[in-house]
Amino acid sequence: MTERLTQVTAADVDDLARGAAILGTGGGGDPYIGKLMAEEAIKEFGPVTLVDPGDLPEEAAVFPVAMMGAPTVMVEKLPSAGQFTGTLSALAQYVGQAPTHVACMEVGGINSTIPLATAARTQLPLMDGDFMGRAFPELQMVTATMYGLPCTPMSITDDKGNAGIFATVSNLWAEKLARVATVEMGASSIISLYQMSGANAARSAVRGSLTKCVQLGRALRAARAAHENPVDAVVQILGGRVIHTGKVTDVLRRTTAGFARGEAQIEGTGANKGATLQLQFQNENIIASREGQVLSTAPDLLICLEADTGEPITTESMRFGHRIALVAAPCDERWHSPAGIELVGPRYFGYDLDPVRWNEADLG
Amino acid sequence: MTERLTQVTAADVDDLARGAAILGTGGGGDPYIGKLMAEEAIKEFGPVTLVDPGDLPEEAAVFPVAMMGAPTVMVEKLPSAGQFTGTLSALAQYVGQAPTHVACMEVGGINSTIPLATAARTQLPLMDGDFMGRAFPELQMVTATMYGLPCTPMSITDDKGNAGIFATVSNLWAEKLARVATVEMGASSIISLYQMSGANAARSAVRGSLTKCVQLGRALRAARAAHENPVDAVVQILGGRVIHTGKVTDVLRRTTAGFARGEAQIEGTGANKGATLQLQFQNENIIASREGQVLSTAPDLLICLEADTGEPITTESMRFGHRIALVAAPCDERWHSPAGIELVGPRYFGYDLDPVRWNEADLG
Repeated sequence: MTERLTQVTAADVDDLARGAAILGTGGGGDPYIGKLMAEEAIKEFGPVTLVDPGDLPEEAAVFPVAMMGAPTVMVEKLPSAGQFTGTLSALAQYVGQAPTHVACMEVGGINSTIPLATAARTQLPLMDGDFMGRAFPELQMVTATMYGLPCTPMSITDDKGNAGIFATVSNLWAEKLARVATVEMGASSIISLYQMSGANAARSAVRGSLTKCVQLGRALRAARAAHENPVDAVVQILGGRVIHTGKVTDVLRRTTAGFARGEAQIEGTGANKGATLQLQFQNENIIASREGQVLSTAPDLLICLEADTGEPITTESMRFGHRIALVAAPCDERWHSPAGIELVGPRYFGYDLDPVRWNEADLG
Repeated sequence: MTERLTQVTAADVDDLARGAAILGTGGGGDPYIGKLMAEEAIKEFGPVTLVDPGDLPEEAAVFPVAMMGAPTVMVEKLPSAGQFTGTLSALAQYVGQAPTHVACMEVGGINSTIPLATAARTQLPLMDGDFMGRAFPELQMVTATMYGLPCTPMSITDDKGNAGIFATVSNLWAEKLARVATVEMGASSIISLYQMSGANAARSAVRGSLTKCVQLGRALRAARAAHENPVDAVVQILGGRVIHTGKVTDVLRRTTAGFARGEAQIEGTGANKGATLQLQFQNENIIASREGQVLSTAPDLLICLEADTGEPITTESMRFGHRIALVAAPCDERWHSPAGIELVGPRYFGYDLDPVRWNEADLG
């Protein structure tokens, strides 16, 4: 499947959610919950039309929508259906313009399926793309920031019916204010932000993300049915490589200030026997190092797959005993520009490291 | 002076600010800063017209404006002039209606002078009233809440140029969300909230507050000029009484979650010699007790005046050695209704006490 999808039906949601969880690099929340919400919305309102960013009318009003907060909380506190439309309406009222298209900010379990559910409920087409090409933990970490596009005005809603708007002097200020509001709202919220024209979306978006999600999900399913190696099928589509296989022997995880931060120890098996890999995450997987050698870092993708099934493992579901194939894969090339590295390189996440690309380390 | 003021000139600001600091019962911020901002605005844009709440057109769009945050911070971080008009514009854009009148939420140093500065800068008339008849620390603590009037949509801005809107399911949720945003904005913000019609303002406002402020300021000044007792002059206008005189021997003060909380010990002098009064405050003075006897509590007014000059002392400026006359005076009678006591009685502030009225305790 190399051509673009033109619509997402209820039958596609499962593949899309699984593929999104893979590209979510450990973050993006529980794919199961997002899947249910999107399926329910498509069953009620019909399939969702996908539009390539390059095919958007220049004057289109593109409203990205996302969930903000700690994935560990999202598992227990579902958004209400009215929150999706409410978030768009609040922003539309403030900017005085109705949305013509819905979009994803990131790919990642719940943040691909929530825009899908929103598009279904509002009967609007969904952009086949996003602004990360993966998942990242903070609002300003989007390709749009590199194009100088403002995050705000943004809207924020909670499951109780509270709504807010922020119009800030920088995307970092939007992150700060929306983050404290999200924490106060119970550690998760639905937001609409980076509202932009079709022309700006075409310039800044990572194209074809949703098609790629479905492609990943389908390939995984096909490999399993054919008793082929599902991890290989994923690696082939991503253009990456397996950098470690092993068993999770320890996971430290804490939910602070609206983030799930932590690290996992993955004791090597097979070719990696005797060497333990340390995986550090902040909602998403950020740094993989083994025996003092950094193997790969953000912005490239670090993806934990269940070794046997190829099933993606989120940072909040990882637990002792999981047998894992850790995949490193290239991100959108724009993230490797100086502006990109400043936004999402290891130093921003608090590690005194230069970025290491997915294929840079000598695996021995 | 029993008749209403019809306008506030630059020459009135000093009296108004001093009177507001008296009614601010220890809160409301540094009256000096607010005074300067109002004087500057009136000098540049001309006197401000005052309108009695009863004379507002029914369809008037009344936009109250206030500063939110810790008075201890307001002393060091001034709002920018553009923040006043910016706060109104943000709310006007969201509600799709331009303001016809500015109003005060409370009387109290800075929260009487900021609406005055805003009215001057926007060339709009100012309502001669407020929604507390004193100062209180939280957004929902207004007479408007007792009339079921919603706090939101509200706008919030900071000195850096960030703006926000909240539309919440309750006034308490508005308080929570605006409070965390205020803390993130640097512990102070300018807000516009309880936007209402002239008809609703006429029903719910405490009338004549600004006239009363000027009246208090003038009386204080006249008493000093005539070498009469300025504390007596204030007590007479308020209809209250002095419940303690003494010297401040200790002040504990901490700024937490956007509030200045603490307590002061006032060692009795004169008739109160040998008895120490304990004054508890949360931005405003809340509870006065002496030797285990509660003398007066919120919602009635507890006002610290400098014993010699009658000058009001805010909770953040109170210090060791201050010689104080502590005045208790009646609040707007609606605060003593069950709904009023629930909002601003001692239990809401965390004290397991029934309210004690200003004239209830036997002072011996």
